[in-house]
Amino acid sequence: MNTTSRIYLDNAATTPLDPEVLDAMLPYLKDHFGNPSSIYSYGREAKMGIEKARKQVAQLVGCTPNEIVFTSGGTESINTAIYTSVNYLNCNHIITTKIEHHATLHSVQYCEQKEHIKVSYLHLNELGQINYDELETLLKLPNTKTLVCLMHANNEIGNLLKIKKVSELVQAYNAYFLCDTVQTIGHYPIQFTDHLVDFAICAPHKFHGPKGVGFLLVNNRVNFPAFIQGGAQERNHRGGTENVYGIVGLAKALEKALNNYESYSAHVLELKTYCYQELKQNFEFLHFNGTLFENNLYTLLNFSVPDEHKAELLIYNLDMNQICISSGSACSSGSSIGSHVIAEIKPSYKGHHFRISFSHLNTKSEIDSLITTLKKFI
Amino acid sequence: MNTTSRIYLDNAATTPLDPEVLDAMLPYLKDHFGNPSSIYSYGREAKMGIEKARKQVAQLVGCTPNEIVFTSGGTESINTAIYTSVNYLNCNHIITTKIEHHATLHSVQYCEQKEHIKVSYLHLNELGQINYDELETLLKLPNTKTLVCLMHANNEIGNLLKIKKVSELVQAYNAYFLCDTVQTIGHYPIQFTDHLVDFAICAPHKFHGPKGVGFLLVNNRVNFPAFIQGGAQERNHRGGTENVYGIVGLAKALEKALNNYESYSAHVLELKTYCYQELKQNFEFLHFNGTLFENNLYTLLNFSVPDEHKAELLIYNLDMNQICISSGSACSSGSSIGSHVIAEIKPSYKGHHFRISFSHLNTKSEIDSLITTLKKFI
Repeated sequence: MNTTSRIYLDNAATTPLDPEVLDAMLPYLKDHFGNPSSIYSYGREAKMGIEKARKQVAQLVGCTPNEIVFTSGGTESINTAIYTSVNYLNCNHIITTKIEHHATLHSVQYCEQKEHIKVSYLHLNELGQINYDELETLLKLPNTKTLVCLMHANNEIGNLLKIKKVSELVQAYNAYFLCDTVQTIGHYPIQFTDHLVDFAICAPHKFHGPKGVGFLLVNNRVNFPAFIQGGAQERNHRGGTENVYGIVGLAKALEKALNNYESYSAHVLELKTYCYQELKQNFEFLHFNGTLFENNLYTLLNFSVPDEHKAELLIYNLDMNQICISSGSACSSGSSIGSHVIAEIKPSYKGHHFRISFSHLNTKSEIDSLITTLKKFI
Repeated sequence: MNTTSRIYLDNAATTPLDPEVLDAMLPYLKDHFGNPSSIYSYGREAKMGIEKARKQVAQLVGCTPNEIVFTSGGTESINTAIYTSVNYLNCNHIITTKIEHHATLHSVQYCEQKEHIKVSYLHLNELGQINYDELETLLKLPNTKTLVCLMHANNEIGNLLKIKKVSELVQAYNAYFLCDTVQTIGHYPIQFTDHLVDFAICAPHKFHGPKGVGFLLVNNRVNFPAFIQGGAQERNHRGGTENVYGIVGLAKALEKALNNYESYSAHVLELKTYCYQELKQNFEFLHFNGTLFENNLYTLLNFSVPDEHKAELLIYNLDMNQICISSGSACSSGSSIGSHVIAEIKPSYKGHHFRISFSHLNTKSEIDSLITTLKKFI
């Protein structure tokens, strides 16, 4: 298959590794192979790679280096934060929504069933937005220690949370705040100052970094032990020999993403806007999901095609034409179940749902090709 | 620093990545970047890489592909197995020893404190060996569902467990068996047939594979949900976007290690034997730990230097002379606490303990350099 001719428009699922990031990783895949816990030269070189990455990451996201715990990725980070909150921070109440990522939903459901934690799901309007007054009301529940689990940006429909507002509410009611920032760290210059959150999440493969690595940002005020227990790595916060080249790649990818934020985001927003206009003009019957351009990710578009337009094979047909888009979260596609996000906000809608997500590597002519190809099938 | 002149003798801590393994990984770091859960071409290529690796690994270790669950490494795998046994398999009793890896010990201690699991530590003789009769007696305890957690090979002193014997006992008493095989998978042609274990562990960075990836082998008869919860990856056994290039590298490293087992192991045993003879001849006062050449790893040597020979700075001094050895497990060195293994079997010994561990890349002349340099310091 000729890979160069393919059009990849599923950058919210994963992104190609930036060659500069790979170049930064290669010395740690070759020469600096030591175990970072070893005290001789090879070990120290590996350790220095990790600690340099930690400082760099901390500076980029506005926290202190000891607030960064490197993990195997977003899902482990979310599991760690929820598990810690319930088992060590004595949270007995979780406030969340039914359109979080499954890493959150399944962990929360587990806590509900196994640890008998009370779970409150915020109501959502048809755009998928929460009601901040309802959040405040739930935070006032007596005899509860609450963990608020809300995504900074929904990975399917792109809605952005008012993170500062939630942060203030959480602090006012002495709760904890886990913000799933998987779709925003690396895409926005977020600064985690003033106790913005207790836990935030990074998965660098969402912004041209490596898979199999990520970090959990844990506010200094949170005292937490390890979820994955073993050696003294990550200052006893995460056992296991570190994924050194992954960590180095994470830092490089984040540096590049944020250093180029202005140009990347301007270009990507232009692509989203252009794609939206073209879709709207060519396919009047489409329904766009989420808040679209108001408080929404500049990186994605989500739309529904009504049943009568027979879009059930659209992803396959586009694939046959070398175009990659998705029906929602990649993490769910393996399970052959449709989007739980759209099902939640549009329960009675009869149709099929699609997510197009962009990166700075995409071009307007790729959007033109998408539109041309779509015309063949819907 | 001139890296080529260094002598690396801590291969039980980690090993340099084999260039052939890196070559196998590179296509997945470059072209095949897709999210394996995505259904279009890029996704399918990544998925095929994973499933090909799974089949290859299963064939190499004598299990079925669906018994392999890819994880972020040895520590996560051990945590998963212990957590699963206690939380889903209803184990209320764990039999282990105090010289297991900290991934096991800390998880077990957690289960003891938090889940009120009864823990029995087998007694050890001065060579660090268990008593199989004591194991059988403990397996007979009434009203218990037991998990046996024993290392196949101790990572510090190299003692090998009679895995077949333990397997038979465990099956006879209807218990579960987690065998920490981190130091043996890739170094021995183990075949996990006939329900040899319920859980086994692989960390490919111990045999010239990548860090940040590993697998948990779970016997088909064990029904277990996810420890890290999220998407439907690994057939719902381990959420999180897969470390595709790590998994591909794992399979390649295992293939190369086992295909070359005869020649690698013969060469490494020769190095161990030569090193032992040279040490013994030149430093009569050394005391060797563990079972040494009888039922012991061919990959390592562990010895103690009595206090009067002032070896406390030996690792630093060797490091200054470009030679890397360790005081024991790397995972503990970050914590600045001495070896818990030697402390357990030689509680009153006054001295310092050292581990030398070999790979097929080492040479006799490196051993000669080690001996020459050691003469300067002890």
